[in-house]
Amino acid sequence: MALAEFDLIDRYFKQQSVRNPSTHLSIGDDCALLNIPQGYQLALTTDTMVENVHFFAGADPETLGHKLLAVNLSDLASMGAKPLSVMLALTLPTVDEVWLQRFAEGFFALATRHHVDLIGGDTTQGSLTLTVQALGLVPTQQALTRSGAKVGDVICMTGLLGEAGLGLKITQGYSCCEPSAALRRFNKPEPRIQEGQAIRTIASACIDISDGLAADLGHLVQQSGVGACLEWDRLPLSMELQNYLSATGDWQMPLTAGDDYELCFTINPAKLAQLTIPYTPIGVIDAGQGVRIYKSSLLHTLSKQGYEHFS
Amino acid sequence: MALAEFDLIDRYFKQQSVRNPSTHLSIGDDCALLNIPQGYQLALTTDTMVENVHFFAGADPETLGHKLLAVNLSDLASMGAKPLSVMLALTLPTVDEVWLQRFAEGFFALATRHHVDLIGGDTTQGSLTLTVQALGLVPTQQALTRSGAKVGDVICMTGLLGEAGLGLKITQGYSCCEPSAALRRFNKPEPRIQEGQAIRTIASACIDISDGLAADLGHLVQQSGVGACLEWDRLPLSMELQNYLSATGDWQMPLTAGDDYELCFTINPAKLAQLTIPYTPIGVIDAGQGVRIYKSSLLHTLSKQGYEHFS
Repeated sequence: MALAEFDLIDRYFKQQSVRNPSTHLSIGDDCALLNIPQGYQLALTTDTMVENVHFFAGADPETLGHKLLAVNLSDLASMGAKPLSVMLALTLPTVDEVWLQRFAEGFFALATRHHVDLIGGDTTQGSLTLTVQALGLVPTQQALTRSGAKVGDVICMTGLLGEAGLGLKITQGYSCCEPSAALRRFNKPEPRIQEGQAIRTIASACIDISDGLAADLGHLVQQSGVGACLEWDRLPLSMELQNYLSATGDWQMPLTAGDDYELCFTINPAKLAQLTIPYTPIGVIDAGQGVRIYKSSLLHTLSKQGYEHFS
Repeated sequence: MALAEFDLIDRYFKQQSVRNPSTHLSIGDDCALLNIPQGYQLALTTDTMVENVHFFAGADPETLGHKLLAVNLSDLASMGAKPLSVMLALTLPTVDEVWLQRFAEGFFALATRHHVDLIGGDTTQGSLTLTVQALGLVPTQQALTRSGAKVGDVICMTGLLGEAGLGLKITQGYSCCEPSAALRRFNKPEPRIQEGQAIRTIASACIDISDGLAADLGHLVQQSGVGACLEWDRLPLSMELQNYLSATGDWQMPLTAGDDYELCFTINPAKLAQLTIPYTPIGVIDAGQGVRIYKSSLLHTLSKQGYEHFS
């Protein structure tokens, strides 16, 4: 049976939403209404995922529901914002109720964990295209931006680098003895929400690693008007990834693979002791040009910077 | 030449944005940052337009840029909100710079007129799918919802009914002597921003006419827990539309055609004198079931309610 737009929204998305105190009016009217508490700024971001571009045709809908929300929450994390609400624009080729049910499960499992309300959306017919708009709160003037890095700052990152890239290689046929961690990081990245808030008043600049460390750090140093010296040998790589690199010689992969959604941040070295989260220092900010990679003390050049659409 | 995602955003969308006082940080970081003034709630909405579903392949990009923003601003208008900012998620099959330039012209001409900032977005590759998320401000507790209609209220609407529907007929080959007004209403609807704010504290409920008056009024009465008696003979119809109806006998068209983006609102009759905008009374709210249509004092039944996806 075909479902009308309004039934779709009601059945799969309306009732599952947690309700946070800011939500005055949720799904069901022409607009949602939010109360924004005093002393906070609103952080807003939007990301789209397209079939055959950002995920393979036939991808698991529960994974998609998780990942679509995760990549948006990751942008909030990188500003040090606390997630508040999301809107969901779903363009679907057909109404597949099993698909919708599973997509909603993945979406709401992550949303509930971070107390995020789904407050509105639109459902349309077309090629599978998924857009989320995410809203978060950050204390006024305390947001972490890309533009605050200073010469002498240490470049740090959360978690492991290249795990999602390795996960992609595994889905493409590379076999390794413990694939589960890398596959999970590729399919179901965890936005670093707590970490972003923990470093908010300590770090000088931050970006999430979505397009690859080299490209994303490149945006950060460009917007800060500084340069970066990255030490390859200090990159936090899992044993499985080290095995992959030994086997293939593909040393650039951890720097150019996207989808890790770890945070890359810069910090005055005098403040390192204030950090309360696990992190790895991977380089320093300097007055040079762009991002330079040193491996075994030698300058290396990347053959590509990272993933970009239309390029 | 293919353009990278970041160049695209910079070239066509970043510099053209007006900057309103609420915009603390616009396009260029992981999130935008907004200051929400005290005493206001945030109104949020999102609408997607898909090629071959909401517009024809090869549609004029300047018209699309206008209409995509207009349909979103119309949702803000129906809540009595003042538009503030928008985010734009563009999924494009290829990078066509002429198309982008013209799309941006249509989009920003309307945005500038309503002092709306474009504060962020995402550009991806895929079938042409356009999503806007719009944000507006409304004084706390003063938003006009769908749920406030009371038995005895008068049902009113702004502007003319069925003009966009007539415009669609004209694009499909119907010829009439003065097609320009209907075509303009179909291609470039004007969101009733000022009207929505003018009736905010006077009307009891409001909805914008996007899916057709019968369907949209149906949502309003359902969410208000009331019924509606609509008088066909009082509908505000242009002379051109009356000619069309005489020629075709298609009396249901004004009630079921979408895309007018006029406001349909309900109001206590004692407050009618307070209205400062042009309007037409078209019926009354009663305790009956759903929307009932009276034409020449006889009850008529619609063969369909209005446009719905997947139905």
